[in-house]
Amino acid sequence: MITKKAKPRGGIDLGGTKIQAAIVDDSGKVLGEARRPTPTSGDPQDVAGEMAAALREAADDAGVETTSLEGIGVGSPGDADERTGVVSTARNLPGWEGSFPLAETLKEALGTEVRVGNDVQVAVEGEYHLGAGSPYSSVLGVWWGTGVGGGLILDGKPWLGRGAAGEIGHMVVKRGGAKCPCGRKGCMEAYAGRAAMEAEARRQHEEGVKTDLFKLMHKHERERLTSGIWERALDHGDPLATSLIERAIEMLGTGVASAVNLIDPEAVVIGGGLGERFGERYMDALSKEMGKHLFVDERPPALKVAALGDLGGAVGASLLFAR
Amino acid sequence: MITKKAKPRGGIDLGGTKIQAAIVDDSGKVLGEARRPTPTSGDPQDVAGEMAAALREAADDAGVETTSLEGIGVGSPGDADERTGVVSTARNLPGWEGSFPLAETLKEALGTEVRVGNDVQVAVEGEYHLGAGSPYSSVLGVWWGTGVGGGLILDGKPWLGRGAAGEIGHMVVKRGGAKCPCGRKGCMEAYAGRAAMEAEARRQHEEGVKTDLFKLMHKHERERLTSGIWERALDHGDPLATSLIERAIEMLGTGVASAVNLIDPEAVVIGGGLGERFGERYMDALSKEMGKHLFVDERPPALKVAALGDLGGAVGASLLFAR
Repeated sequence: MITKKAKPRGGIDLGGTKIQAAIVDDSGKVLGEARRPTPTSGDPQDVAGEMAAALREAADDAGVETTSLEGIGVGSPGDADERTGVVSTARNLPGWEGSFPLAETLKEALGTEVRVGNDVQVAVEGEYHLGAGSPYSSVLGVWWGTGVGGGLILDGKPWLGRGAAGEIGHMVVKRGGAKCPCGRKGCMEAYAGRAAMEAEARRQHEEGVKTDLFKLMHKHERERLTSGIWERALDHGDPLATSLIERAIEMLGTGVASAVNLIDPEAVVIGGGLGERFGERYMDALSKEMGKHLFVDERPPALKVAALGDLGGAVGASLLFAR
Repeated sequence: MITKKAKPRGGIDLGGTKIQAAIVDDSGKVLGEARRPTPTSGDPQDVAGEMAAALREAADDAGVETTSLEGIGVGSPGDADERTGVVSTARNLPGWEGSFPLAETLKEALGTEVRVGNDVQVAVEGEYHLGAGSPYSSVLGVWWGTGVGGGLILDGKPWLGRGAAGEIGHMVVKRGGAKCPCGRKGCMEAYAGRAAMEAEARRQHEEGVKTDLFKLMHKHERERLTSGIWERALDHGDPLATSLIERAIEMLGTGVASAVNLIDPEAVVIGGGLGERFGERYMDALSKEMGKHLFVDERPPALKVAALGDLGGAVGASLLFAR
């Protein structure tokens, strides 16, 4: 439920490659938007500068002053402390191994209140209020991208635990299994995260397994196996890409079913880069894999793909001022 | 927080082998108690008759009339519907494959309001209000016994999901792994539940692996490997018992860590037959196994053994009238 408020809100989704800003009214309608690349060098101050610039552009686009906003919410990677507005160990951003007072810095630059939240959690809240999760009161969000993140809405409210709830990607699906980018073994992300899938594809390719994945990557001038590269390879029936995606779906199904057995939510919303690209394509397969492990299998939760698209993260972040 | 009320409450813990009844005042103090064996033949009506008899004895013991109670709560196995008071598919009870209006039947017999809840969930609520979980506002209960059940308290309130939350025993810790009594594969219960451990011990024993487990079982005139039999075998350094318990602890640690990564509760309370018997003995080992898989490993949740003992289930059930 969004509280009725007259003033529009700002939202910023801080990603590893881009900064997406939006101005959103109290019904969730986007009034203005802007996008900038995330700095790849420098320090958190430089990143904050680009964030402020993106938000100012979005405000211009909407025809409002940043000082007239109800507030600006930020969805951030790393450890985003909602109480203090400090973001720590955002390792995919330049020079952000330590802690940086992001909310305070942006507040000074933009002249309005700023709140920070976990990027996945705010995106899930966006889907809960305005997107695929809106018919439900309890939602498990599964953000399938470079890593696998998650967010929880229980009884209409975000459940953050002690601040770190939702790490569904690090639920163990196979004890003693594959090494995860987090350093542990057998996590769901070790099989389903894009980074882990790329590492496994590279390993098998170097061992002589045939695949067009890396050829396609070079042809499209990418440095990583993006979701678009995976999609092309799958469309061509590339066997390695197919087997790795199928394994990812198996492990996602297993981990999501485990989470459902524990939480029993009304709905599961699949988002993130791979989730939005492959959600519909693999929804039946995912549902089938989940079904193998659901304890109450006669009434599985609703399974939906995120509906808000590219702006979902920024729109969700703006809702930090609607809680 | 328990609401102040003048009248005492009744609580009944309906187990596969015994029915435990208690009369509890509004501070959680036990005023009277009684215990009866659970009927092993007959039908739900016979079981309800013994439950009513046990509760009457407990009321006599406390010197109160059953009609003067605030209400009577029941912790039940099977599918206990809190709204309707109907209990279905309690397969470890005689003739209880279908549905039976337990609350209504007991209300008629005892002349006071009756509520039913899941046995593990109400035991966890008991520990939350009055036992090992009382310093915390979010608690994950892990009931380690014949099976492995669970219960959640989030922000001071029971979290039931759509009625089936807490099935931590059926979170998958090893995809494609051991067959679980539930029929699925790789569940935590398939390694840690007493029934599954006994089946595995029997299998290995029949294959020629040496163990005193079954000798001890016959000597003490048991039909199953009870927690007491396991304890004796462990005290004697029985290698099979030791390896199976160690494997159970590994899998419990893995599954509980997965649940903590998702929920991030303040505390984990370990209860149930094996949990209460072995909790202290294996607490360090369990904590170490959990540590291997905790995503935020620098601040693990508090790990506690259930404190209310044999009466915990009945006391917890009485709190169905304190919510």
